[in-house]
Amino acid sequence: MSVTRQAWAYLNRVVEGPSRALQAHLQAGRDAEELARGIRARASWLGPLGPETEARHAWQRSEEDLAAAALVGGRLVTPDDAEWPADALDHAFGFAATGLSEHLRTYQSDAVAPHGLWVRGPALTGAFAQAVGVVGTRATSAYGRKVTADLVRGLAPAQWTILSGGALGVDAVAHETALSVGGRTVVVAACGLDQTYPKTHRDLFARIVDSDGAVITEYPPGTTPQRHRFLTRNRLVAALSAGTVVIEAGWRSGALNTLSWAEALGRIPMAVPGPVTSAASSGCHARLREHRAQLVTSADDIRALLEALGSVDAESQYELAFAPDQIQQLSRNELRVYDALPLRGGADADRIATAAGLPLPLTIHLLLDLERRGMLIREGNDWRRAGLG
Amino acid sequence: MSVTRQAWAYLNRVVEGPSRALQAHLQAGRDAEELARGIRARASWLGPLGPETEARHAWQRSEEDLAAAALVGGRLVTPDDAEWPADALDHAFGFAATGLSEHLRTYQSDAVAPHGLWVRGPALTGAFAQAVGVVGTRATSAYGRKVTADLVRGLAPAQWTILSGGALGVDAVAHETALSVGGRTVVVAACGLDQTYPKTHRDLFARIVDSDGAVITEYPPGTTPQRHRFLTRNRLVAALSAGTVVIEAGWRSGALNTLSWAEALGRIPMAVPGPVTSAASSGCHARLREHRAQLVTSADDIRALLEALGSVDAESQYELAFAPDQIQQLSRNELRVYDALPLRGGADADRIATAAGLPLPLTIHLLLDLERRGMLIREGNDWRRAGLG
Repeated sequence: MSVTRQAWAYLNRVVEGPSRALQAHLQAGRDAEELARGIRARASWLGPLGPETEARHAWQRSEEDLAAAALVGGRLVTPDDAEWPADALDHAFGFAATGLSEHLRTYQSDAVAPHGLWVRGPALTGAFAQAVGVVGTRATSAYGRKVTADLVRGLAPAQWTILSGGALGVDAVAHETALSVGGRTVVVAACGLDQTYPKTHRDLFARIVDSDGAVITEYPPGTTPQRHRFLTRNRLVAALSAGTVVIEAGWRSGALNTLSWAEALGRIPMAVPGPVTSAASSGCHARLREHRAQLVTSADDIRALLEALGSVDAESQYELAFAPDQIQQLSRNELRVYDALPLRGGADADRIATAAGLPLPLTIHLLLDLERRGMLIREGNDWRRAGLG
Repeated sequence: MSVTRQAWAYLNRVVEGPSRALQAHLQAGRDAEELARGIRARASWLGPLGPETEARHAWQRSEEDLAAAALVGGRLVTPDDAEWPADALDHAFGFAATGLSEHLRTYQSDAVAPHGLWVRGPALTGAFAQAVGVVGTRATSAYGRKVTADLVRGLAPAQWTILSGGALGVDAVAHETALSVGGRTVVVAACGLDQTYPKTHRDLFARIVDSDGAVITEYPPGTTPQRHRFLTRNRLVAALSAGTVVIEAGWRSGALNTLSWAEALGRIPMAVPGPVTSAASSGCHARLREHRAQLVTSADDIRALLEALGSVDAESQYELAFAPDQIQQLSRNELRVYDALPLRGGADADRIATAAGLPLPLTIHLLLDLERRGMLIREGNDWRRAGLG
């Protein structure tokens, strides 16, 4: 067992994720061993991480934790590992760090990456290259079960990883359907790998792990599911997916929290409408009414929204290879945003979103992508086209 | 029979509504008798109205038409009559005339008021002060019938006139439910009063007329229902209502045309979602997906949207009388628009719509209302707050 992995296991035990204070140190370039030593020694440079780790800093359970994970076929994956989902996490939490999301305020303190993932299943490499969150109420109706199964049957065989929370209801139907069509599915759990919540899903989770899927959690072994952990778990479902679709959700359903996280992290929030006579669709309708989610009715709708974000797609790859210039390489939604920019001068994201007819969070997302490709320049709140020569 | 009414009856016979050319003459101040004389004499000043009336100008059927209408208990209502719904028509076609609606292009030539309404039922006075269009597919499901009835039961007893097209399906349920709760309902027909379409609704229409409701049409007696007349009829449903809700509509349903007219005329387009597994809701979902309709799930949702437009409402009348200043008299949506304006300088409607979080057509509508009250000033495409002293 490497010293570094032991240091990460120590950090996972004494700092409950998400920790903005710990992330700040990692971003500043401190490595796991240095951080572990600092916490143990109560170093003065810890800053807010000092009080955060005061009660637990003397705990030395790295070997026990790693052994407990191994006992259930699990391991600790850290930012140092090749299988760490760096792209997805950087995308989501990098977006959060820009402060551009209007929906971020509520979640500000928790909008940081995990500092470790405990994983049962094969290497995570590629698991989130094309991933969609599929969530909903535990108290799902026959309609909700049918729609969940229909959507997953249209996504999982097309190499879309189905992420969900492993709960009863919509989550379970999503995972089960993905398995039934030979797709990949990942459970993001709100407790340690040695806990199973809900207990009736022990067999389901085992089949997922045996079918190229995974159960992942940011909590070390022994951690019990608690209310606040469901909320931070929801943020990982949203972060690791290009978008999250909620199929049925009542007014106070936790699935709406996952949708809020998708907004906050620059991912695409989507909702399926249903009969207005059913309370199980009321939360979906509320988000649609407020224009805080895109209305989707089919797997094709979802793919049209998510593939437009430049995910892997054979056809667009083909177009890319033969495109004569940069603009022709743009996806449909990218082109809408690009075309919405004035020919001369700048415009702010609000204005561009209106002109493009796209929701603001998606527009900002696309603007940032276009900026990364050098096609746009940002000046304060305004964006303008870069000269393309 | 007055000479003027005979002149209007002549115009209704020789000029099939809507006629932009005829409206232009009316707007320019020519009265019915002068226009009738001009058409009969093939006057040079007719302009485009000349060719439009060439084939029919010699028809002299005013007395027969008025008699045919009287035979089925009907009469011709003209812009000269006190019961003419001038407010509603001016509001809708005045909005269309500003050219501000982004959805108007398709309908440009037909976006003018009727030049006469043939009416069965009591005087129209007040009928459209609080009116809502309720439309949908003929091939409605049990769900569509239930939702239609629920919505109408929440609107009709609260002095909302229910407008619809008198067709089978959603239209029929809307009219029937309004009758069943003692509410007022109006059929806008696509044929002459002496025709009944569909024929199975003869009894329904008679009961409507006997219950303070009406059957109205812009077509003279003898006119048969034809495809183009359904489309222009739809424009009157939209024009005479503060908003139109579509309950079920397939991809190609005519009810979507009524919704497009609501957009084009600055009225509020609304759609009820339904099961994504039902083709009958697919048109509703398409409009919601494109953000071309407001999602509504209940009569309360509809009233919240429409009453915000300053329609008659006891509570707001009370507030109006006692409000200490102009701003406190604003409805919730008016206030959202007003607050979205910058404190200094101007902003265009796109930007204000985004800041207010309201759809563009509704925003423009509210801006025009605020301008009429002297609270805003328009300069080119920009709007700014007027000094309130």
